[in-house]
Amino acid sequence: MAAYELHYWPGLQGRGEFVRLALEEAGAPYRDIALDDGVGGDTGIDDPAIITPAFALPVLRHGKRVIGQTAAILLYLGDRHGLAPRSEAGRLWTHQLQLTIADVVTEAHDAHHPIGSGLYYEDQKPEAKRRAADFCAERVPKFLQWFEAVLERNPKGAAHLVGARVTYAETSLFQLVAGLRYAFPKASERALRKTPKVAALAEAVAGRPRIAAYLASERRIPFNEQGIFRHYPELDL
Amino acid sequence: MAAYELHYWPGLQGRGEFVRLALEEAGAPYRDIALDDGVGGDTGIDDPAIITPAFALPVLRHGKRVIGQTAAILLYLGDRHGLAPRSEAGRLWTHQLQLTIADVVTEAHDAHHPIGSGLYYEDQKPEAKRRAADFCAERVPKFLQWFEAVLERNPKGAAHLVGARVTYAETSLFQLVAGLRYAFPKASERALRKTPKVAALAEAVAGRPRIAAYLASERRIPFNEQGIFRHYPELDL
Repeated sequence: MAAYELHYWPGLQGRGEFVRLALEEAGAPYRDIALDDGVGGDTGIDDPAIITPAFALPVLRHGKRVIGQTAAILLYLGDRHGLAPRSEAGRLWTHQLQLTIADVVTEAHDAHHPIGSGLYYEDQKPEAKRRAADFCAERVPKFLQWFEAVLERNPKGAAHLVGARVTYAETSLFQLVAGLRYAFPKASERALRKTPKVAALAEAVAGRPRIAAYLASERRIPFNEQGIFRHYPELDL
Repeated sequence: MAAYELHYWPGLQGRGEFVRLALEEAGAPYRDIALDDGVGGDTGIDDPAIITPAFALPVLRHGKRVIGQTAAILLYLGDRHGLAPRSEAGRLWTHQLQLTIADVVTEAHDAHHPIGSGLYYEDQKPEAKRRAADFCAERVPKFLQWFEAVLERNPKGAAHLVGARVTYAETSLFQLVAGLRYAFPKASERALRKTPKVAALAEAVAGRPRIAAYLASERRIPFNEQGIFRHYPELDL
């Protein structure tokens, strides 16, 4: 089958990064349309011949398949590249972890855009400050403590979220921790001090050979203030 | 295997309703813990023996399985009750539709709680008014038009989202439309006039024998201002 095509906005990690990390860990060849072309990708909505258009980017194209929604893309890749268990229970649990990570990601975005993604940050700064205060004080610790509990309860040991192998939920948790550290350095370090197993897992993922090579490459777009995780010091509460 | 147990908050439809509708359409016996007991359900986080605790409700328990995240629960039920195609592509597409519905649901919630779910609506009314204006003017039409395009492109006809049969994505789209109509009657009617296939599908789902019986029963909790879809007239913009 053809190589994967990842369609995403240019110049930012965004939700596309969760797909990139899974593809990199899998060692799967892919074409990063935004990087290659310098233009945003394509959801398929403008082409009536595509019967499964996506609502939004990222989109993964693979042969005739057009798949949207980050978690659905990862479900697809997980099966193909051993990035999730084969058992139904393990596969669903991995997906449940990913969906919870996706919830934190949405909240991290809304911390700087609580009123609407169509408006500039500058037009919603007071609201962002209120929302970020709640996110930093309540939500980040609660989410990270839940992941810590998941690691503590894994019968195969706290080095992994699911069983004894890396899954796409782990490359995603790495990205979540990296993003929180970039955007909210004080708040996230405060929370991570109480969730050492989460911090250790993020470090272990960063040290995996393919992930380390990717992070050191030019393919890894640096965090910036166009992405989901934005460092506005006034929001790090 | 044991009957299903749905754990959810008492007295509101919330995200639990998407699970209830799938179970009702399937004719699957289930115990609704909140309804039966008058107390909220249980994520499993307080019981260290549960190795797959959920971050939040709803939770479906089935024998030894403890499953969280609405979309993951529906993925599980879809396979078991023929509420999604058996083919990998159809199954994933159904899930992608559900994940997009979940995104609208989160935005519908945030329209009245843009600053934080831990705060009262009364403490974020000005912010809610700004966010709801964006939600009603931009987001609701965009989402409904996307579902309209999906229906128009279905090679099996516009009566269904996926293939020629009902799926959990359809019971969920019914609930989304019902919720939007309750919470934002003016804005949603305005959008639905331009998306007649979405409106027709919602009506068709409501008329399915098991769904109609459920909606007429006492098991259906009325919409109210504790749920996700809240009717605050000042937000119907």
